[in-house]
Amino acid sequence: MFKKVLIANRGEIAVRIIRTCRELGIKTVAVYSTADRDSLHVYLADESVCIGGPQPSQSYLNVPAIIAAAELTGADAVHPGYGFLSENPGFAEICQACGIKFIGPSPETMLLMGDKAKAREVAKKAGVPVVPGSGVVKTVQEALREAERIGFPVLVKAAHGGGGRGMRLIESARDAETQIATAMAEAEAAFGSGEVYVEKFVENPRHIEVQVIADSKGNVFTLFERECSLQRRHQKVVEEAPSPFVTPELRRELSKAAASIARYINYEGAGTVEFLVDGKGNFYFIEMNTRIQVEHPVTEMVTSKDLIAQQIAAAAGEELDFSQVKLNGHAVEFRITCEDYRSGFRPVPGKVEKLLLPGGFGVRVDTHLYEGYKVPVYYDSLLAKLVVWGETREEALKRAKRALSEFVIKGDLKTTIPFHLKLLENELFLRGEIDTKTLEDKILPEIT
Amino acid sequence: MFKKVLIANRGEIAVRIIRTCRELGIKTVAVYSTADRDSLHVYLADESVCIGGPQPSQSYLNVPAIIAAAELTGADAVHPGYGFLSENPGFAEICQACGIKFIGPSPETMLLMGDKAKAREVAKKAGVPVVPGSGVVKTVQEALREAERIGFPVLVKAAHGGGGRGMRLIESARDAETQIATAMAEAEAAFGSGEVYVEKFVENPRHIEVQVIADSKGNVFTLFERECSLQRRHQKVVEEAPSPFVTPELRRELSKAAASIARYINYEGAGTVEFLVDGKGNFYFIEMNTRIQVEHPVTEMVTSKDLIAQQIAAAAGEELDFSQVKLNGHAVEFRITCEDYRSGFRPVPGKVEKLLLPGGFGVRVDTHLYEGYKVPVYYDSLLAKLVVWGETREEALKRAKRALSEFVIKGDLKTTIPFHLKLLENELFLRGEIDTKTLEDKILPEIT
Repeated sequence: MFKKVLIANRGEIAVRIIRTCRELGIKTVAVYSTADRDSLHVYLADESVCIGGPQPSQSYLNVPAIIAAAELTGADAVHPGYGFLSENPGFAEICQACGIKFIGPSPETMLLMGDKAKAREVAKKAGVPVVPGSGVVKTVQEALREAERIGFPVLVKAAHGGGGRGMRLIESARDAETQIATAMAEAEAAFGSGEVYVEKFVENPRHIEVQVIADSKGNVFTLFERECSLQRRHQKVVEEAPSPFVTPELRRELSKAAASIARYINYEGAGTVEFLVDGKGNFYFIEMNTRIQVEHPVTEMVTSKDLIAQQIAAAAGEELDFSQVKLNGHAVEFRITCEDYRSGFRPVPGKVEKLLLPGGFGVRVDTHLYEGYKVPVYYDSLLAKLVVWGETREEALKRAKRALSEFVIKGDLKTTIPFHLKLLENELFLRGEIDTKTLEDKILPEIT
Repeated sequence: MFKKVLIANRGEIAVRIIRTCRELGIKTVAVYSTADRDSLHVYLADESVCIGGPQPSQSYLNVPAIIAAAELTGADAVHPGYGFLSENPGFAEICQACGIKFIGPSPETMLLMGDKAKAREVAKKAGVPVVPGSGVVKTVQEALREAERIGFPVLVKAAHGGGGRGMRLIESARDAETQIATAMAEAEAAFGSGEVYVEKFVENPRHIEVQVIADSKGNVFTLFERECSLQRRHQKVVEEAPSPFVTPELRRELSKAAASIARYINYEGAGTVEFLVDGKGNFYFIEMNTRIQVEHPVTEMVTSKDLIAQQIAAAAGEELDFSQVKLNGHAVEFRITCEDYRSGFRPVPGKVEKLLLPGGFGVRVDTHLYEGYKVPVYYDSLLAKLVVWGETREEALKRAKRALSEFVIKGDLKTTIPFHLKLLENELFLRGEIDTKTLEDKILPEIT
């Protein structure tokens, strides 16, 4: 087992990783930017090293400084958390070259799955459905043929564009030709090229992901799914396990698909295979995240397994065994951020003058906050993750309401606690009738 | 279901009960003494009523004031918590007479089980072993006959005394006659009466208790045992579930015995049947507590059942069902009190200037503390209950060490956090080799 782990991250996830290392008897090294001198992860770690200025590029993305900190302190492993360098194959490679174990999959695997086109090929080869699509097409007729082959509704997207410009949803064959022509003209005007590609439009898709964990002996396990459809601007807001939509049969299929991909690439460590799932239960691979996810605690709550401990065990070469794990109850995570939901979720960081964390039965809070802490402006706006457990989804949501109503974070900052309390009064959310557009299209207009 | 519950208590247990009421959609009324104006339970409840001065007799034991508060606020039920009026049949009777549901068993049951001699008779009739003993004996010869009948070792105790005076441990028949005579002389000198009684001496007994819960339909359930042997002056210090000593077979026997007693008295609600268990697994009923216990969270952690919610459901006449409950993992509770363990556990209350609660996977804290709170001098010294869960006892204890090491309660008060950290280095505790004397006889002399 490792003797000393450097945590190449900050905030709640750094605190989370330090906690598990302590329980495993592993010493910890915190790294921090000059803006994070007074951070909880620095206080909790056995040692700490300042690695640079407040901008992420100066510190938490500063590979030479992090490697130097690891060598200086004699750390034999690095845990990257999520974000920052966690999916950077170059960083993993340098760790490897320096004889420091990177807690995650190999650089090659990260490189492969980080390339969305290659990852799509992997899924296909592993026998997992992907969203059907064409290659780049240059003419209206070609696009029309592809659309007919794929089946309507389809999306026509600019090949060299982005941000929704030159994108057209085409419902049926009726006026497809005209619409494709318009899309191509728009693409030409916006990006200087009329080339487009055609993709199956998945209607009202849910974002459902499967937790995968694999050891170095070739054992691949899945730990059920997480429902992550409640999103704003492609950012997850609330996550839960299991998904209220997934039947036992669909769960088996999704788990099998996720395991197939992990096996196909000889995956090691914790990872997440993300799917779009339509209203009929058809699912399509979208991507694989080769790291621990923000929302991993909901899986921990329904499996009683510490995923960070398992991740470390896998990296240390231990054999894992999840054969006895059963799905127990229902867990929901609420991301509490320092944002003003009434003004477009504008970040409003500041000083925490008063803090009261909810507690008691079925409540877990992962946070780096303390009374007197000043939230820096340089990093993401996550303040705390409130995770609730219940025997049923209904019980978990009632507990969430209770916990949120006793959660106090006061000061010259704003938090999304009031937003989550509003969400808990929304019928669509309460009934679990959510897809990736529900929050933006139906819930937010009502709430704000 | 009840509409409004008055919580006739304070501190962490009042907070605990308010939390569950909120989750169940029940309004809450806090009562408080003038010393508790700024207490967390007052802040969290929907309504609050001041019921008198700081002394318990003026407020939390002040039945007329509490009943008036319930009537004033229209509460339809009272939860007594533990301590204070929780085992007072008179209070339960007055509640009943006023049409307020007392959340607990009937006054008759409380009266019966509150009388130790009668409770002992109940156990016998229910077929549960009690510590063998004589009635009052007046002569040495009579005492000797009883001792021989019961079997050595025996304790000879003054019938009209207490505090250990006139008490003799007699190991064997050899010099029994002399020792009995000495005990009787001592009793005569100390209490004006030489009358004694003879009781089986249970060697190195463990204190093990079984959680019972019964509804009003006649369903009686047991939720495994708690190990509570780690005591100082008969006060529990650390509790765990399950007991590291109890085998599946002994668990079945203890559970069966506890259920027999509950059935025999038509018990309703949550209760605890306490046993002394010797090194060979012989067990003897000692008493039944007809209320929720301080240590109930360890049972909650290994059963995933909210006992307060179940208690309320039972009181509201709902049918309970625990037939699917399985024992999951291991939980340990550490009572954090404001005491100085280096000077005989002298209470040192004061103001909480800095507070940092441990969190994350497998950690639960039940507390009424907040930063700036001043612990009043009038009540018991419990500040917080740290409850940890692990797949195994070993994992739970490692988690406890981590959680205690990050737990900060600073100010002009002392806490037993350092004591618990010392305890977690003690081999006897780590191995689970504890009886009711281990803490005082073996561990404390080493630690302090």
